[in-house]
Amino acid sequence: MISQSKIKLINSLSKKKYRDLNQLFIAEGEKLVGDIVNSSINIKWIFATKNWIDAHKEIKADEIQECDLIQLKKISQLKNPSPVVAICKIPSAKHCDSLFGENLTIALDDIQDPGNLGTIIRLADWFGVDYIVCSNNTADAFNPKVVQATMGAISRVKVIYTNLEEFIKEAKSQNIAVYGTFLDGTSIYEKRLSGHGIIVMGNEGKGISPKIENLISDKLLIPSFSLNQEFSESLNVSTATAITLSEFRRRI
Amino acid sequence: MISQSKIKLINSLSKKKYRDLNQLFIAEGEKLVGDIVNSSINIKWIFATKNWIDAHKEIKADEIQECDLIQLKKISQLKNPSPVVAICKIPSAKHCDSLFGENLTIALDDIQDPGNLGTIIRLADWFGVDYIVCSNNTADAFNPKVVQATMGAISRVKVIYTNLEEFIKEAKSQNIAVYGTFLDGTSIYEKRLSGHGIIVMGNEGKGISPKIENLISDKLLIPSFSLNQEFSESLNVSTATAITLSEFRRRI
Repeated sequence: MISQSKIKLINSLSKKKYRDLNQLFIAEGEKLVGDIVNSSINIKWIFATKNWIDAHKEIKADEIQECDLIQLKKISQLKNPSPVVAICKIPSAKHCDSLFGENLTIALDDIQDPGNLGTIIRLADWFGVDYIVCSNNTADAFNPKVVQATMGAISRVKVIYTNLEEFIKEAKSQNIAVYGTFLDGTSIYEKRLSGHGIIVMGNEGKGISPKIENLISDKLLIPSFSLNQEFSESLNVSTATAITLSEFRRRI
Repeated sequence: MISQSKIKLINSLSKKKYRDLNQLFIAEGEKLVGDIVNSSINIKWIFATKNWIDAHKEIKADEIQECDLIQLKKISQLKNPSPVVAICKIPSAKHCDSLFGENLTIALDDIQDPGNLGTIIRLADWFGVDYIVCSNNTADAFNPKVVQATMGAISRVKVIYTNLEEFIKEAKSQNIAVYGTFLDGTSIYEKRLSGHGIIVMGNEGKGISPKIENLISDKLLIPSFSLNQEFSESLNVSTATAITLSEFRRRI
């Protein structure tokens, strides 16, 4: 039996307030939890069926509790409970020793849509980006829907929330290039791009905020090939991120 | 006053069955309707405030009816009605004379998610693709939510529904290249890409169907740069479309 106090705590984690308070998030499903147990994410509790536990003897968690699907349904956020639910510790910036390392880092300036955030985490995983650094007003990556939508990518890409302006100032003081996409930038197809730097992606409606724009060292443009360029809208932030990451990687 | 029979017909257009039956779709909002009146889409009815009509004397539509916001609310699909609602004719393949012209064409093989479809229409607009040819099982581009999500792109990109297998067979008989992305293709960064051909994008879960795969002339791969490639999932179809279109265009 899962205790009432645990059931109450776990269900509260669907709200950001309680994720922040407890520094915990929920992950469900064999594939996703399988990815997390192979990652650097620390697991506090695992609730799983006997079959799942028997097949995963080597798992590290503070506590592993066997339970049946009827009990799992009480803590599941999904329509059909899976055989395993993991309660995981939210990674913190303190645990990141190489944020200014030799790789690309994505910085998100107030991205609002959880769907875009989930897509960007999957893209970072695909293109081998280790860290996504989010402004404190960016949507929460540890929202159960985002966690599920990343399809395991959240176990491999570290997502950190911090004061983005301070973070980028610190990077600049270490001479790290800071890229961003703008309508008045240099074509991304013509610019020499580094394999080491920060790529800033801006809010869906407002783009990159003025205080962050002041810190950009290299303004990039994704050119439009439309014959009606005066009508053409800007690209959606997740497709712009896809094109930008592809361009940075293809050059290495 | 908008007649009861028109109100009933217009509200029925939120359902695919009635869009198909009447070959009509709804577009709302000053920006979107403004884009449509500048496009090749034919408008059956416009319902708009006096101010909007006075500012748009040159608009062509079978009928233009002045009405106030209280009446517009009866036919609006949005939370807050805009000053103009247009009832437009769905473009048909019969009106397309240059489907095998000198440009790129996107073919969608059973894309299910309306959000992905809207994003792909915006990408086609950005990258100057004139036609999107959809299998009959692809999500409906004339669903009011998709129309609004394309932010005007649907007025510039022609979206056609047809038997995709027959369409691609016809293209092949004219020696037109047919591209598709696969996990066992040639790297898109190394392959010579044409500015003339069909790019097939597959279903979210199943990818490109076997009967269409048999017709692909050039299999492309978007390479992953992940250190954990064995875990990395495939890309979301709209981000894969973004990267593919960017690669085709940057080479021209």
